Amino acid sequence: MLSILALLSLFAADEAEKLGPTVGEIMEAAPEEIWLDPDPDQLIYIETEKGTAVVRLSSNLAQGHVEQVKTLAREHYYDGLHFYRVVHGFVAQGGDASGEKDKGSAKDSLTAEFEETAPEGFTFTPLGFADGYAAEAGYTDGMPAGRDAETETVWLAHCTGAFAFGRDVGRDTASTEFYITIQPQRYLDRNLTVFGRVIYGMDAIQALPRGNFGDGGVNADEATWTEIKSIRLESEIPSEDRIDLEYMDTSSETFRQLITARSARASEFFYYRPGYIDLCQMPLPVRLTPENAE
Amino acid sequence: MLSILALLSLFAADEAEKLGPTVGEIMEAAPEEIWLDPDPDQLIYIETEKGTAVVRLSSNLAQGHVEQVKTLAREHYYDGLHFYRVVHGFVAQGGDASGEKDKGSAKDSLTAEFEETAPEGFTFTPLGFADGYAAEAGYTDGMPAGRDAETETVWLAHCTGAFAFGRDVGRDTASTEFYITIQPQRYLDRNLTVFGRVIYGMDAIQALPRGNFGDGGVNADEATWTEIKSIRLESEIPSEDRIDLEYMDTSSETFRQLITARSARASEFFYYRPGYIDLCQMPLPVRLTPENAE
Repeated sequence: MLSILALLSLFAADEAEKLGPTVGEIMEAAPEEIWLDPDPDQLIYIETEKGTAVVRLSSNLAQGHVEQVKTLAREHYYDGLHFYRVVHGFVAQGGDASGEKDKGSAKDSLTAEFEETAPEGFTFTPLGFADGYAAEAGYTDGMPAGRDAETETVWLAHCTGAFAFGRDVGRDTASTEFYITIQPQRYLDRNLTVFGRVIYGMDAIQALPRGNFGDGGVNADEATWTEIKSIRLESEIPSEDRIDLEYMDTSSETFRQLITARSARASEFFYYRPGYIDLCQMPLPVRLTPENAE
Repeated sequence: MLSILALLSLFAADEAEKLGPTVGEIMEAAPEEIWLDPDPDQLIYIETEKGTAVVRLSSNLAQGHVEQVKTLAREHYYDGLHFYRVVHGFVAQGGDASGEKDKGSAKDSLTAEFEETAPEGFTFTPLGFADGYAAEAGYTDGMPAGRDAETETVWLAHCTGAFAFGRDVGRDTASTEFYITIQPQRYLDRNLTVFGRVIYGMDAIQALPRGNFGDGGVNADEATWTEIKSIRLESEIPSEDRIDLEYMDTSSETFRQLITARSARASEFFYYRPGYIDLCQMPLPVRLTPENAE
């Protein structure tokens, strides 16, 4: 005869089966081919005294901005400039606070790419949940994104680690100043051009000293600015100094399973299951390439 | 005769009037009495080599956990222990990794306070927007929170800077290990007990070195752990070493106006206005007490 305890654990097993595999189980079962190597011409390394952050640039959205930052990186434009506006709970903004540094071959101003028609070959993995900021929220090309069937547009979303250019009030005024969100700021979606995402070293960005909280502007005290030692394309970095990263293919079946698992939470650790996941709380799996991991 | 440009700016002025004041205008007009001084017995200072973080403890929710951490702080339990589990995009967890340190007068295990009946005098300022994780999302006592009329319960939410105790699989197994969310993790709501929030120094927490990403467990390499130099109640700290902070009364009319302004975004900077704000993207205004600010 089964004890009450055994009946309870049978029930728990049934429940878990109904809920499907856990995040850990899915990660263990993931096939090797869904781990993608980023293109070295699509990665930029940002060096400060706080460490290295690696940004992966979009492969098919906002290509005007992507080309601009690649030009600026190739010409070493950012070297010696600063993170001069780091606001608690908001963004870390860097570039030329004076606005006077020669931009070299880069453009003086860029056409806004806040949102755009989906390019050919565009793939989108919808979360399948309501989202206050987008008709549909999901992932494309390893990055959180929005899609709207009515406007027939797509865009990258301001989750933590979004890489974007700042601008003045005019739409087409972005040129060199960039920011990285240190927390989600989805209300900026479709208002600025996101064109990449930090895939490594957010601790180096989140460690940057915050400016006077309250004003939200440029850090008044220049002594609190952090120097940008360099911004480089990975393809310019000697192979022994590269960080060998891989990110999960977000159009893979494994990533779809992870979305389900992260909303359903099959593990017995959970007592309350919302059956929902927010875009910015759905992480992109990134790992060190196994043969190089310690 | 008005030029097209002048007509456009008249239109813009009308639009702005309809949308109401901007965040900056509301902050400037805020009366002094809505800036509250935290109780020195309700603040804990966490010291590491990365700097100081200040956590404000809940004044009326999860009081079993609040009393426990105060006991531990008074008995200097955490001094010399470590942040031993810091996971990219998730949490920074600290305490006694060995599980063997004498807890002094503190309890061996706490009754879960994941959610509870609203205590007397409880105030709640709802955002008024749909939320995937809670029937109602809003602020109470300076902290993001959820409320459910059906279960008649309230709870503090896992936005960035939430201060909570970890636990084992059992509900009532929390005792001393704490974590601070470095990004929102709302799926943990009602599954663990949040009982405070970082109001200063998130850069010191977000700067903690992340463990091997991928496994999500305890940082395998103890050399990457960060020592907790001390955790102290502010009331134990000499007044010259205190950080004089004030936070906004979240039951004030000003805070309600900020919710509206942050969803409507009256400033002409914005081209797309979602008319929505997510709980974890609604910041709590905190400032240095003006007479002490530099």
